[in-house]
Amino acid sequence: MKQSRQEPCCGVARFLTLLDGPWSTLIVRELLSGPMRFTELKTALNGISAHTLTNRLKQFEVNGIVTRTVFAETPPRVVYQLTPLGEALKDVLEAMRQWGDSVPNYTHCPSS
Amino acid sequence: MKQSRQEPCCGVARFLTLLDGPWSTLIVRELLSGPMRFTELKTALNGISAHTLTNRLKQFEVNGIVTRTVFAETPPRVVYQLTPLGEALKDVLEAMRQWGDSVPNYTHCPSS
Repeated sequence: MKQSRQEPCCGVARFLTLLDGPWSTLIVRELLSGPMRFTELKTALNGISAHTLTNRLKQFEVNGIVTRTVFAETPPRVVYQLTPLGEALKDVLEAMRQWGDSVPNYTHCPSS
Repeated sequence: MKQSRQEPCCGVARFLTLLDGPWSTLIVRELLSGPMRFTELKTALNGISAHTLTNRLKQFEVNGIVTRTVFAETPPRVVYQLTPLGEALKDVLEAMRQWGDSVPNYTHCPSS
């Protein structure tokens, strides 16, 4: 999106820049249930590559959406957790979920 | 996103599949103000290509998010308008906007 290289001053564009790509939002969806380890996230997000997950988590850390805590165990345990800013995304995901659930006859989802 | 080729039955994943890519959401943002012509949309969305805009509008039409009306004038006038399903995205965009506006010290947006 060329716009992101300019100045996305609208809140919607800011959201789209910080939650870049669908996996970002799905990572937040998982973390809204509580802190998770890398491997737990990778298992929960069927199809995500380790590269993409690492990249998104680093970006989230840089942007203050996620914290990364290393526990000095053997092997070391690394846990990812939403910050208050990340937790505040709950309202956005809830609005997405309500809209998504309201879509009639959506053929990609046979059980709906 | 590999998941979209499977069955994104969660409402969040449905939203992400139907609002594919950041331009999709920004097109909806513009149309929430009222019906618009193709050229008006292209001007409002600084940086979008005609190809991407055409593609997104076609997908929106197929998925019942936008209607396309041709007025038999010379030259013909083509107007895009959100359906009730598309209008219902207002709540999602409002939640995105609120969150985006709450992000502190976001360097991509010097005027905030």
